[in-house]
Amino acid sequence: MMIIMKVEATDKQVEAVVEKVHALGFETHTSQGEERSIIGVVGNNPITAQHQFVRMLGVDRIVPISRPYKLASREFIKEDSTFPIDGVEIGGKGILIIAGPCAVEDRSLLLENALAVQEAGAHALRGGAFKPRSSPYAFQGLGEKGLEMLAEVREITGMPVVTEAMSADQVPLITKYADMIQIGARNMQNFNLLNAVGESQHPVLLKRGLASTIEDLLMAAEYVLSHGNRRVVLCERGIRTFETSTRNTTDINAIPVLKAQTHLPVVLDPSHSTGHWQYVTAIARAAIAAGADGLIIEVHPKPDEALSDGVQSLKPERFAELVRQIRGIAEAVDRYVPPSKVTKK
Amino acid sequence: MMIIMKVEATDKQVEAVVEKVHALGFETHTSQGEERSIIGVVGNNPITAQHQFVRMLGVDRIVPISRPYKLASREFIKEDSTFPIDGVEIGGKGILIIAGPCAVEDRSLLLENALAVQEAGAHALRGGAFKPRSSPYAFQGLGEKGLEMLAEVREITGMPVVTEAMSADQVPLITKYADMIQIGARNMQNFNLLNAVGESQHPVLLKRGLASTIEDLLMAAEYVLSHGNRRVVLCERGIRTFETSTRNTTDINAIPVLKAQTHLPVVLDPSHSTGHWQYVTAIARAAIAAGADGLIIEVHPKPDEALSDGVQSLKPERFAELVRQIRGIAEAVDRYVPPSKVTKK
Amino acid sequence: MMIIMKVEATDKQVEAVVEKVHALGFETHTSQGEERSIIGVVGNNPITAQHQFVRMLGVDRIVPISRPYKLASREFIKEDSTFPIDGVEIGGKGILIIAGPCAVEDRSLLLENALAVQEAGAHALRGGAFKPRSSPYAFQGLGEKGLEMLAEVREITGMPVVTEAMSADQVPLITKYADMIQIGARNMQNFNLLNAVGESQHPVLLKRGLASTIEDLLMAAEYVLSHGNRRVVLCERGIRTFETSTRNTTDINAIPVLKAQTHLPVVLDPSHSTGHWQYVTAIARAAIAAGADGLIIEVHPKPDEALSDGVQSLKPERFAELVRQIRGIAEAVDRYVPPSKVTKK
Amino acid sequence: MMIIMKVEATDKQVEAVVEKVHALGFETHTSQGEERSIIGVVGNNPITAQHQFVRMLGVDRIVPISRPYKLASREFIKEDSTFPIDGVEIGGKGILIIAGPCAVEDRSLLLENALAVQEAGAHALRGGAFKPRSSPYAFQGLGEKGLEMLAEVREITGMPVVTEAMSADQVPLITKYADMIQIGARNMQNFNLLNAVGESQHPVLLKRGLASTIEDLLMAAEYVLSHGNRRVVLCERGIRTFETSTRNTTDINAIPVLKAQTHLPVVLDPSHSTGHWQYVTAIARAAIAAGADGLIIEVHPKPDEALSDGVQSLKPERFAELVRQIRGIAEAVDRYVPPSKVTKK
Repeated sequence: MMIIMKVEATDKQVEAVVEKVHALGFETHTSQGEERSIIGVVGNNPITAQHQFVRMLGVDRIVPISRPYKLASREFIKEDSTFPIDGVEIGGKGILIIAGPCAVEDRSLLLENALAVQEAGAHALRGGAFKPRSSPYAFQGLGEKGLEMLAEVREITGMPVVTEAMSADQVPLITKYADMIQIGARNMQNFNLLNAVGESQHPVLLKRGLASTIEDLLMAAEYVLSHGNRRVVLCERGIRTFETSTRNTTDINAIPVLKAQTHLPVVLDPSHSTGHWQYVTAIARAAIAAGADGLIIEVHPKPDEALSDGVQSLKPERFAELVRQIRGIAEAVDRYVPPSKVTKK
Repeated sequence: MMIIMKVEATDKQVEAVVEKVHALGFETHTSQGEERSIIGVVGNNPITAQHQFVRMLGVDRIVPISRPYKLASREFIKEDSTFPIDGVEIGGKGILIIAGPCAVEDRSLLLENALAVQEAGAHALRGGAFKPRSSPYAFQGLGEKGLEMLAEVREITGMPVVTEAMSADQVPLITKYADMIQIGARNMQNFNLLNAVGESQHPVLLKRGLASTIEDLLMAAEYVLSHGNRRVVLCERGIRTFETSTRNTTDINAIPVLKAQTHLPVVLDPSHSTGHWQYVTAIARAAIAAGADGLIIEVHPKPDEALSDGVQSLKPERFAELVRQIRGIAEAVDRYVPPSKVTKK
Repeated sequence: MMIIMKVEATDKQVEAVVEKVHALGFETHTSQGEERSIIGVVGNNPITAQHQFVRMLGVDRIVPISRPYKLASREFIKEDSTFPIDGVEIGGKGILIIAGPCAVEDRSLLLENALAVQEAGAHALRGGAFKPRSSPYAFQGLGEKGLEMLAEVREITGMPVVTEAMSADQVPLITKYADMIQIGARNMQNFNLLNAVGESQHPVLLKRGLASTIEDLLMAAEYVLSHGNRRVVLCERGIRTFETSTRNTTDINAIPVLKAQTHLPVVLDPSHSTGHWQYVTAIARAAIAAGADGLIIEVHPKPDEALSDGVQSLKPERFAELVRQIRGIAEAVDRYVPPSKVTKK
Repeated sequence: MMIIMKVEATDKQVEAVVEKVHALGFETHTSQGEERSIIGVVGNNPITAQHQFVRMLGVDRIVPISRPYKLASREFIKEDSTFPIDGVEIGGKGILIIAGPCAVEDRSLLLENALAVQEAGAHALRGGAFKPRSSPYAFQGLGEKGLEMLAEVREITGMPVVTEAMSADQVPLITKYADMIQIGARNMQNFNLLNAVGESQHPVLLKRGLASTIEDLLMAAEYVLSHGNRRVVLCERGIRTFETSTRNTTDINAIPVLKAQTHLPVVLDPSHSTGHWQYVTAIARAAIAAGADGLIIEVHPKPDEALSDGVQSLKPERFAELVRQIRGIAEAVDRYVPPSKVTKK
């Protein structure tokens, strides 16, 4: 942490700050510039003491130096983290594709959807049983019944299942049925939930909040990691900006920035980050070209009849075309899309 | 809902859309413009069917018409909602001032704080026992012990207490100790929590999310209202924008917009919306001038030693000056600051 | 400037950076923290050399320390700048109110408007002769003919006139007819224009750009000030955010922030910052309560027939009520609205 | 345009609005919904009359229907626009790569740069002679001397030249020396400049403003197109959001959205949209994968010594690697990077 003194700060004021820093057990390095003094504060996480200085006479402002996350940082773990989700590897050279409906609605529709995305090349199945909806009057998900359907379809297809937990008390239930717990964008800073999934030791798909910086996302990951759960996948899903022609703004920069700053795998959700099925394939291609480790895509056999997010869901045949195109892009960046279980046959 | 057809849509395509609308039980009013056809869809909440049309040939886009909230809307309830929080009225001509520490840290410090803000003119006491913190390494609150301290201080001072619930399962505990449940910005769309506070029938202080539109905020209120709990106070606390010289951007426009669109009381939190104690008083004045019904302010007797948010907390003497200035502004807009319990003496 | 080294930087890498700093004629203060080294660079504006370091081995990032503006800064000029605009003082205890139509449309309508706003209490007349319009098909202003009308109305009413220059080559024309040159939000970083108004030595009303930070605004002011023209008034007029219920988001925080960081007068334009006449009065009150030195308001006797911005213009009777309310707010913050010339009679 | 009436509007109020619409020469289609009446207004550009209705009793709000641009719209021109810039085609299957320094600084450095980027595969040379800089104390460009250097280097290399015009009066000078006029982000709504480049009939590279929506960008293009100049290339270069880890946020969604809404070619500038050389190649790949028609990239042989934007410039060898990677991506999306003149040899 650096304490920037005012241009007009007196020597006495500088001394008083230095003394207070020492009194708190930190060391100082003061530099006297052309205009003003700057006091470097050295020690263990000095930024937590910043409020002790902001009201002192002569202090202009405080500048943090260290990044606030550790376990998520590539400064501390150099190698890419890779781990399997029910046998499917994420974070290596292979591109992981997760696909399925926004919400689980019906057993036979789910099975049809799962078989179609698997046939098209998907490695894992997504589908919400608990749905966060901005309107209290909208379909809120099937709850545990939906989880049972997911587990049943996993049994049939062999695909691992990703589904969302909306609160800490749902975590035991979710881990019972699913291979990976999704934390939705609206819950990225639901710290009780982050602690619960951290303790669960289950793989986590952590979605970036609509107004969360990349640093916020890494701090949320830090919550999970601090419980010893290292199997965290970060998901860019669009941020909120002034642009209204798409539902959100895909922060494609976040892909290379995250790959530079953290060792954790990074995927993109082009369904939510665009909000229109017409743009999903183009942005999926962009994500892989930018270095993403995977994709999560909404697919629905009858998007006209979907109870949630039908506007942004792809039909299975378009999804198959997306996977075909992604194979080409993956090759161009020296990666590949592993065969899905069914295509192994 | 309006279905806007493409310029090049054929008559057949228009007919197909109209037929589908009728098949779903809605009525249509089609207008044939210079350039294109527009199909007005009339019925009960037709927007929920929009995904059924976005993929039809010839359809350009869908435009919603109705606002998605009802119970929160001034279109349905014309009169300002007013109600007491432990005897202190909100939503009428009087300005309600809530003050206290960011987090409850210690019994005697809390009591000192409470007595000081009451003396200065505050009507209710704020203080967090459960603290959402962006870092897992930061102070997370005292939990139930903090709630007990709040209840004890309420006993002594007679001031009602506002404190935050971070998850649905904390709601019974919070209602046991506090007079008003705060929903924090990060939990504005934690729908499980909104349902729980709705069912509790306890007064609610609902803070706007950092990236939430005014409509999102009213939809979150709708969750609470839909359980028959009408005692909801909305709180503007700053939104996230590109400006970095303050912690957030106070959306002062939200005050008159909310007063026009909803009957619910509206307060402002200038401590979070600015993030710097130096700007709190100016923005508190602005809020009341713009028509807010109250304020929630962070005060700390020793902000240098606060465990949370010390940078934005006011010392009690500055808070007293703030209340003095607010009295003047309130008068200028034909309102008033009622005496606090202690000043009645 | 601080050069933050990577956690894993070697001593040799730190030395190489230090040597390069010295080679460029700057001094260094290196502090060796728990995790990493930080090299403070001292000298004249070292930030301009930052690109020389970002590619060096072991460098993590660069943190600027000094603010990039000088003449605009309160660090260099402590006292509030005050100056007259054709005899009307700005920047002192009096609140300056500028009002009039968005665009000059017609001589008699302009005169009617001017007399009405003067009667209501305005001190200066606004009105655009050159109009920046987002559509090439919209009314673009009357040009010099409009300027002549403004000058004529000034003659009759005695009110100074504020009007916009859209390019450097219009500046001589504008200064011939008007008392204050407005730089519009879209031109805040039209540096040729800033240089031209700087050289003109004419009073300038500088509007903040839609996506400009407060620092950007002060840097734009610095362009004008660097030509020795000190008569610059800063204008907050709303920034662009994700909120769509108003045309822009009034950054009310900018008022106290600017008053703290610069000695230049600050006014607010609630017509553009809200975009709806219904909210103009509330936000005008908020501006003065927050510490603004003045207001600029769009008024039109027949807003239904305005060729530009009729949606946000006030009718004269509503404007008169606004001035009445502003008098009350001004008093509450220990300021006043001076009588307009006509009301002196 | 749709006029949405209030829920409580009376029949009389609806009639009054309908009458006024007719009086203005438009037709109406009124639909009586469950809650409220909606009046569709049909005719030539009715939105220009919206201010005539917003103050009428019973009116809730106005919803525009038509897009405000015509010549730029794919609704009016279905086929992709393609045209040559000094013999180099843009808008077809070939990917156009423009590269060079941020600013022209020196003749021999410029020539070295040009030969290097040409060797690496670039088709056109960029370089600023007039530089918009946020600080008045920063290097402002060489002016006409810089243009002469660009023309000389074009002579030697045979590469067409792209350079920025900062004001309308510079346009004749720029067209004398350059093959394509760049409009910078800060000038996207400098309407005098847009008119001047429109009249010039010279190819235009139009950069999106930091806070401009996609619709704003298309309206700015409409200014140029309305002068009969159809050779406009749109350039996404990042928008301003709350994210601070990159200089701007690349709006990658804008690529497929623009390709859907307009027939004009679309390129991306990853140097400005990221602001860090480390991320330029990844985002360049993403752009082509998303469907962009070209790239504009900052390259500098000695970025450490660049007078402007050295932080985001690539060295020639990294640029050569970027082009190599782009060839692979182009192929994967069924496009190609045509050989540059030198590589034809």
